[in-house]
Amino acid sequence: MAFRSQLKIRFGDIDRAGIVYYPRFMHYFHVALEEFFASELGIEYHKVVEKHRIGLPTVHLESDFSRPFSYGDKIEVEVRVLKIGQSSITFGYRVFKEGETDPRIVGHNVTVCLNMDSFIKMDIPDWLRQLLERNYVATK
Amino acid sequence: MAFRSQLKIRFGDIDRAGIVYYPRFMHYFHVALEEFFASELGIEYHKVVEKHRIGLPTVHLESDFSRPFSYGDKIEVEVRVLKIGQSSITFGYRVFKEGETDPRIVGHNVTVCLNMDSFIKMDIPDWLRQLLERNYVATK
Amino acid sequence: MAFRSQLKIRFGDIDRAGIVYYPRFMHYFHVALEEFFASELGIEYHKVVEKHRIGLPTVHLESDFSRPFSYGDKIEVEVRVLKIGQSSITFGYRVFKEGETDPRIVGHNVTVCLNMDSFIKMDIPDWLRQLLERNYVATK
Amino acid sequence: MAFRSQLKIRFGDIDRAGIVYYPRFMHYFHVALEEFFASELGIEYHKVVEKHRIGLPTVHLESDFSRPFSYGDKIEVEVRVLKIGQSSITFGYRVFKEGETDPRIVGHNVTVCLNMDSFIKMDIPDWLRQLLERNYVATK
Repeated sequence: MAFRSQLKIRFGDIDRAGIVYYPRFMHYFHVALEEFFASELGIEYHKVVEKHRIGLPTVHLESDFSRPFSYGDKIEVEVRVLKIGQSSITFGYRVFKEGETDPRIVGHNVTVCLNMDSFIKMDIPDWLRQLLERNYVATK
Repeated sequence: MAFRSQLKIRFGDIDRAGIVYYPRFMHYFHVALEEFFASELGIEYHKVVEKHRIGLPTVHLESDFSRPFSYGDKIEVEVRVLKIGQSSITFGYRVFKEGETDPRIVGHNVTVCLNMDSFIKMDIPDWLRQLLERNYVATK
Repeated sequence: MAFRSQLKIRFGDIDRAGIVYYPRFMHYFHVALEEFFASELGIEYHKVVEKHRIGLPTVHLESDFSRPFSYGDKIEVEVRVLKIGQSSITFGYRVFKEGETDPRIVGHNVTVCLNMDSFIKMDIPDWLRQLLERNYVATK
Repeated sequence: MAFRSQLKIRFGDIDRAGIVYYPRFMHYFHVALEEFFASELGIEYHKVVEKHRIGLPTVHLESDFSRPFSYGDKIEVEVRVLKIGQSSITFGYRVFKEGETDPRIVGHNVTVCLNMDSFIKMDIPDWLRQLLERNYVATK
């Protein structure tokens, strides 16, 4: 089964409509991605940035939201490697309410490998490619 | 020309890579949308929510990011009505760095009209439809 | 020992100076408070708000920061009940870097019990007072 | 009259209790501080950080909140220089609802001048001290 990060909807995540403010989900995606790196790839994301000097800025994002989340909901954010290109990596995200089998949010972000010192696009280094491939989930 | 909201990249909007944390752009989109309602539709967004009891949750979002933004950048977030359905409204967003002619971010969000008391989808009310149509920009 | 909530400094919590943006700590305090309610008082904070219709807005906050935190740091946010008044509750917070014995942040927030429907100050209800007293830590 | 920054309470600034999530005010303080630097001191804050390599982390903060703010409120955040030490600067903040004469929030933050490369405390440089003194408001 794909990796899932357990999170909780917080008091301050709610907007004036009483549901989660949608930009917060993009933050949750990133939090789950950080957990995915630590737990599945075996390297802390901050080391990717600070030691290896590699950034992964998002160049495309796309998400569908079928049902809202409320304060106090416990959620699971699934992270998968959907595609590995020359320099781009596509991460897939699905957000489940705890106990439910259908995701309420399905999305993916395309990120690009960036040399953090020159801010120039770079090929995915071999060590990272190997880690990603090992965690690649073919089926959608 | 389409409506643009002038914003500034703030000290706290930056992530560990030294560029704007991408979820912040989704927040900027919403801030610009609120300004669009007040300035172009002639109704404060909080009145739509609180007086008319209409919510506009995002059901689909999609954005492309071609170049990053840095702290101190002055930006313009353009808001356009791209599509008006039975109950859905698609807002288009483009983010420009002040003085540049090519947008660095191009995206759109599909929102759905929701009765805020029942949380059930509703048709766009006529008064809102008329305001939106008056600001509809046909060309992409 | 007092309750501690384990948290991680996230990629987007960092400001342009490369350290945690200080408003984020006020958010961490609240996250830790929510965990404190669930874990120590035995009631989810969202039930306090939604079922019991009690709010606890902050009327005074005060914090000292002796050393900054960086991306990737694992932190522990300690929560204690410092004072229980007629309608006010003072929560004490201390933030430790994992493995350190001296806190890097020491603060407290005074909150006031509010009837969420009338938005009028109310006495702390007995059931909540009892839960708080059971978790009261006399020494500072 | 002291400098004031005009801001609006945004849709996503609201918490589950329907009022502004208090950590947001710490963010507003910083936004107003950035405006204060640009408008009153005549130097963009990002240049202080990026060109002069000076950081101003908060080492102490303290605020009183007398009345909450709601979505759609227009606010004015007043910024004053309350104290100039050897290496510390105390900024005073007051938050008014537009049209009101009594502030709803009164606070101050003590910040310390930091060399951004060594992360070591430094004396306030003369050029900054002169700018601050010119904007010092003696009365509280």
